[in-house]
Amino acid sequence: MRSVRIVVTNCNTTQEMTEEIVRGARAAAGPGTTVTGLTPGWGPESAEGWLDSYLSAAAVMDALRTYDGEPYDAVVMAGFGEHGREGARELVDVPVVDITEAAAHLACLLGRRYGVVTTLERSCGQIEDSLELAGVGRNCAAVVGTGLGVLDLGDAERTEAAFLAAAERVRAAGAEVLVLGCAGMTGLERTVGDKLGLPVVDGVGAAVKLAEGLVGLGLTTSRAGSLARPVPKRRAWGAG
Amino acid sequence: MRSVRIVVTNCNTTQEMTEEIVRGARAAAGPGTTVTGLTPGWGPESAEGWLDSYLSAAAVMDALRTYDGEPYDAVVMAGFGEHGREGARELVDVPVVDITEAAAHLACLLGRRYGVVTTLERSCGQIEDSLELAGVGRNCAAVVGTGLGVLDLGDAERTEAAFLAAAERVRAAGAEVLVLGCAGMTGLERTVGDKLGLPVVDGVGAAVKLAEGLVGLGLTTSRAGSLARPVPKRRAWGAG
Amino acid sequence: MRSVRIVVTNCNTTQEMTEEIVRGARAAAGPGTTVTGLTPGWGPESAEGWLDSYLSAAAVMDALRTYDGEPYDAVVMAGFGEHGREGARELVDVPVVDITEAAAHLACLLGRRYGVVTTLERSCGQIEDSLELAGVGRNCAAVVGTGLGVLDLGDAERTEAAFLAAAERVRAAGAEVLVLGCAGMTGLERTVGDKLGLPVVDGVGAAVKLAEGLVGLGLTTSRAGSLARPVPKRRAWGAG
Amino acid sequence: MRSVRIVVTNCNTTQEMTEEIVRGARAAAGPGTTVTGLTPGWGPESAEGWLDSYLSAAAVMDALRTYDGEPYDAVVMAGFGEHGREGARELVDVPVVDITEAAAHLACLLGRRYGVVTTLERSCGQIEDSLELAGVGRNCAAVVGTGLGVLDLGDAERTEAAFLAAAERVRAAGAEVLVLGCAGMTGLERTVGDKLGLPVVDGVGAAVKLAEGLVGLGLTTSRAGSLARPVPKRRAWGAG
Amino acid sequence: MRSVRIVVTNCNTTQEMTEEIVRGARAAAGPGTTVTGLTPGWGPESAEGWLDSYLSAAAVMDALRTYDGEPYDAVVMAGFGEHGREGARELVDVPVVDITEAAAHLACLLGRRYGVVTTLERSCGQIEDSLELAGVGRNCAAVVGTGLGVLDLGDAERTEAAFLAAAERVRAAGAEVLVLGCAGMTGLERTVGDKLGLPVVDGVGAAVKLAEGLVGLGLTTSRAGSLARPVPKRRAWGAG
Amino acid sequence: MRSVRIVVTNCNTTQEMTEEIVRGARAAAGPGTTVTGLTPGWGPESAEGWLDSYLSAAAVMDALRTYDGEPYDAVVMAGFGEHGREGARELVDVPVVDITEAAAHLACLLGRRYGVVTTLERSCGQIEDSLELAGVGRNCAAVVGTGLGVLDLGDAERTEAAFLAAAERVRAAGAEVLVLGCAGMTGLERTVGDKLGLPVVDGVGAAVKLAEGLVGLGLTTSRAGSLARPVPKRRAWGAG
Repeated sequence: MRSVRIVVTNCNTTQEMTEEIVRGARAAAGPGTTVTGLTPGWGPESAEGWLDSYLSAAAVMDALRTYDGEPYDAVVMAGFGEHGREGARELVDVPVVDITEAAAHLACLLGRRYGVVTTLERSCGQIEDSLELAGVGRNCAAVVGTGLGVLDLGDAERTEAAFLAAAERVRAAGAEVLVLGCAGMTGLERTVGDKLGLPVVDGVGAAVKLAEGLVGLGLTTSRAGSLARPVPKRRAWGAG
Repeated sequence: MRSVRIVVTNCNTTQEMTEEIVRGARAAAGPGTTVTGLTPGWGPESAEGWLDSYLSAAAVMDALRTYDGEPYDAVVMAGFGEHGREGARELVDVPVVDITEAAAHLACLLGRRYGVVTTLERSCGQIEDSLELAGVGRNCAAVVGTGLGVLDLGDAERTEAAFLAAAERVRAAGAEVLVLGCAGMTGLERTVGDKLGLPVVDGVGAAVKLAEGLVGLGLTTSRAGSLARPVPKRRAWGAG
Repeated sequence: MRSVRIVVTNCNTTQEMTEEIVRGARAAAGPGTTVTGLTPGWGPESAEGWLDSYLSAAAVMDALRTYDGEPYDAVVMAGFGEHGREGARELVDVPVVDITEAAAHLACLLGRRYGVVTTLERSCGQIEDSLELAGVGRNCAAVVGTGLGVLDLGDAERTEAAFLAAAERVRAAGAEVLVLGCAGMTGLERTVGDKLGLPVVDGVGAAVKLAEGLVGLGLTTSRAGSLARPVPKRRAWGAG
Repeated sequence: MRSVRIVVTNCNTTQEMTEEIVRGARAAAGPGTTVTGLTPGWGPESAEGWLDSYLSAAAVMDALRTYDGEPYDAVVMAGFGEHGREGARELVDVPVVDITEAAAHLACLLGRRYGVVTTLERSCGQIEDSLELAGVGRNCAAVVGTGLGVLDLGDAERTEAAFLAAAERVRAAGAEVLVLGCAGMTGLERTVGDKLGLPVVDGVGAAVKLAEGLVGLGLTTSRAGSLARPVPKRRAWGAG
Repeated sequence: MRSVRIVVTNCNTTQEMTEEIVRGARAAAGPGTTVTGLTPGWGPESAEGWLDSYLSAAAVMDALRTYDGEPYDAVVMAGFGEHGREGARELVDVPVVDITEAAAHLACLLGRRYGVVTTLERSCGQIEDSLELAGVGRNCAAVVGTGLGVLDLGDAERTEAAFLAAAERVRAAGAEVLVLGCAGMTGLERTVGDKLGLPVVDGVGAAVKLAEGLVGLGLTTSRAGSLARPVPKRRAWGAG
Repeated sequence: MRSVRIVVTNCNTTQEMTEEIVRGARAAAGPGTTVTGLTPGWGPESAEGWLDSYLSAAAVMDALRTYDGEPYDAVVMAGFGEHGREGARELVDVPVVDITEAAAHLACLLGRRYGVVTTLERSCGQIEDSLELAGVGRNCAAVVGTGLGVLDLGDAERTEAAFLAAAERVRAAGAEVLVLGCAGMTGLERTVGDKLGLPVVDGVGAAVKLAEGLVGLGLTTSRAGSLARPVPKRRAWGAG
């Protein structure tokens, strides 16, 4: 069995976050899997809100479009609740797994309802929309914010306390499983899982496993419909 | 009563299409309304599919962000089914009306179910998603493609024939009102309306009217929630 | 551009309320728009609950049917949550806009979720049903009552206090935009908007703007389906 | 066990139809049940479309309000897809069962999906709305018209042929059970049931059985919520 | 009119509970109805959770399959929220009514929204699923647990107190009608109804009335679709 | 990395089918994964319809309950559209993946809409219900039958022809990805995928990959809610 080569795209330009995500992805990856991080050359330094999300989507697609590294077998898009997955699917010929949907897919297998704890309250709506369109919104009990920005997640103690408080609200809404609603929370599933008594799903790990699975089964994006390859035409990627 | 100054953003870089859209917008505008077209400095030459749509969303936001013309009272986003409206709402302090949702809002007032006829079949899914998230998907009976690309719409006869054929499918699905599913179809509502015996709503005109209405009532985007102004941070708009 | 002549129908027999609604409608109307009030000759003195609503629907249709004043270009139906709009659409050949749906259509353009504050709790269900069937229920976060009857709204201070308390509940449910859930609340959008920090949409003003827009675009109700003109037959309008 | 006294309200002013409905109701009624017909003193001679439906709703409520016959234990409202049931529930202290919802409730017990065959195509939308709000729309596969008007149903042969053709469309949509979508079709369930090989539910019979059941269990409309008794106030019932 | 002979199946092996259910069924039955209890020969002693529910479904089907008593006209399945109704419908040629759906069908006729109070919290999800698939989930405001196990219901005082507390939560969620969410609660509708000021529907009584109604109308399960008779084949019913 | 030991449960008593499923599972399994088949000691020889499905659910739970072989890390339940997954989740402490949901989860990652082709038409409803409750029904465009029974699938040519015909119907309904709707179809994804030009997902392979993923991430069923371990009590598993 050949190895699985995964490119993980950060949704922002912060190299440290790419590295953190890659660490999370490698911790989840199987023995035959290699993980390469891809940081967009432009876009927001963190994605919080719709403007950032659309900017990020374009930048991530551009990063994939201009990528000239080693061949790869799958793409993991590591922006929780961020846009762009369908565009990436049009662009590359390998499976593309977004961490938002990935976490929800696995969470559905672990309990009757799941919930998401994310960063800023303003991101909750985007996440709900992303889950709905991915086809896995039905069993989502709630999406709740901690009030922390993406770049505040470095403070582990404060993050954990805010996460646990938000998790109680999600559980009260009926969630039996929790989802970490930000790529920057990767690793938190281990520290808070026991305290909560609930399974905690990290989207990065989930996406790595789903990507490995799809590659293992020889499956990739359908070209027969809305995700056909982009129509050839002139496109300019930024004001440059 | 002061005049209403509307900026209409094209979703692609084709200047001719901007001009056509502006003509359509002006035909719909009230006597006190002025319309200015805004063509993104980058992005796709036409938007067909998700990759184009996300690229377009970023380019349109950049065009609004760097706009330094006359002040304006509202933005009309003229990309049918294209992404970006929430990002534009975060960015500017005046109302933003997307032609997709605008057409649907007015269509709901004219019949129990409406339907959309658009260009390529591959765009139908995006339009359905856009209507759903805008909150007006419930009464949409069908979204149907004509098989024509955006840049094929110049051939009036072929366009009309393809439109009428698609319109029959939409009507058979229960639509009592038709929506033109592409900004480049503006004007077609007059030539096909009588033949079809159905009201035909053009999104550009609908959006102009909704923008005039919101400005007239002194209403603009809520900042209390998901559409707060963007968090200040570093953002790079393209590879330049 | 010719003027737009709007007939605004009150849903009850209280002449003072018609006058108040007409004042609200005129405040919203564009320079070329004239507004005429129409008070049903029979029906309830205020509409609160289903029995009143169905009685009101018949009385408003009768008022439109027997109207013999100046010609008009559109009808605004000023009963929030009340029945009858589809019947009026069958009856007259000009666009008909109900204030319930009108407020919701504009609210959808201003935020991701909206909420409604109305009079009695018992009316909330009717309003939810009305929004759902109009095709704009999806993005409604909550409909909440103030406990005030329609005819209690004269006490401005009490009304404002009750409105603000109810508005907090709606906001907690996720609403980013508020809708005034009673024609008799017209004007309150100015006094409470600032205190709440949310856009507040009045259905009467919203309906006037939508009516102006439809007339300006030359659009009216589809006859090709469920809203065809009434079948000719004997009908008796009341026990007389 | 005391007898159950049911008042069946026709939705139109046609006395012959009341008699036919009463015959159908009596055929379904248990041995201890008496059925009295109630024909509105005003309203449409048949109900086809929304204008008729709202007019009918008011007229039926007026008939119940002014009824001064023998006491009764339940009301059956015999207008398929017509409005008014919630108003009647506010008005009287006994259970009210509408034939639309009644047929659907029983149909749900007989198969995974049911479908409705009604008169004019224009009535289909009203019926769908009525089923949805009654809470039984989920398992409705389709509502299909025969093209026959209510007053055309006297021609038995033509009615049966049109019904069978429409029934095939409903079955193809997944219906395992058929519902007669007009009070005037009562009796047809016997003549077409065998030919179709599907259970056929008549709303009049279904409503009689549900009314008997509710009375037998001592259950009636909840007053704790939206269906409280009407607020005392001045109401005029018609132009008289 | 011939009598109606109903077999009521307990969902568990506890004979005392069968007897209690039969008492409840008889209290609801009309004068011409006879009720026979059927206790499965195997399965769980009470059904709480999914494992019990599926075990119970198989055991109840086996009990019906091997039943060799007097002929009967209808089956009432007395396991609130338990699985199996579609299997029983395939198996027997008479109508099958499950108490879960039965209670909901009648509750929908009594108020705009209903709610369910059941035993353990863990059962709430199963009940929600059961209502949804039966086609009557839309108007269910909430399903709430009392924390009592099925076999704890013998303590009347504790049961009533827990029921009343749970009922308040259901009412706060918008329910206008209450449903007893366990066959073992039969009888409680009389003791708590007055205290709550809401109609209370017991599923056993509701199912008896619906079964009587279907038999009276000569209706039974459709064979034209998913509920056709079981395909002949080898089946072993238990490890024996 | 330790190996993953998967027990695959057949939903029927046909040993040959267990072996075929095990072959399919092994073909999909990663290098460190072992697969053991488990054939219920009782139940139906094939599962077609609800009666079979509930019988199968109980029999599969009994097989897991009495299993005394080697320890295992995950369970794959190989009955497409069959009941029982929640019961198995209550019973065992390792992740349980049902092939129905598994196929849908992966299919959602490969296209905007997916569709299912199964055996008998009568099974379609069960599959729809299973997908809906698993939380992945939203993006299912259609479930279509081939008319072949489970035990007819041995005739490869006939199966393929029937499959291709059904697949066209699914594609016409909007599916961009196909799901094999029967465990006995495993292998068909290779022979028909190219002919169809669509990705074809086999539930057995999908479930193996999801099980490997969950085990790799250390995730298992939530005990905090509806899937808590079964309440201790007397249970008899079959008539024996």
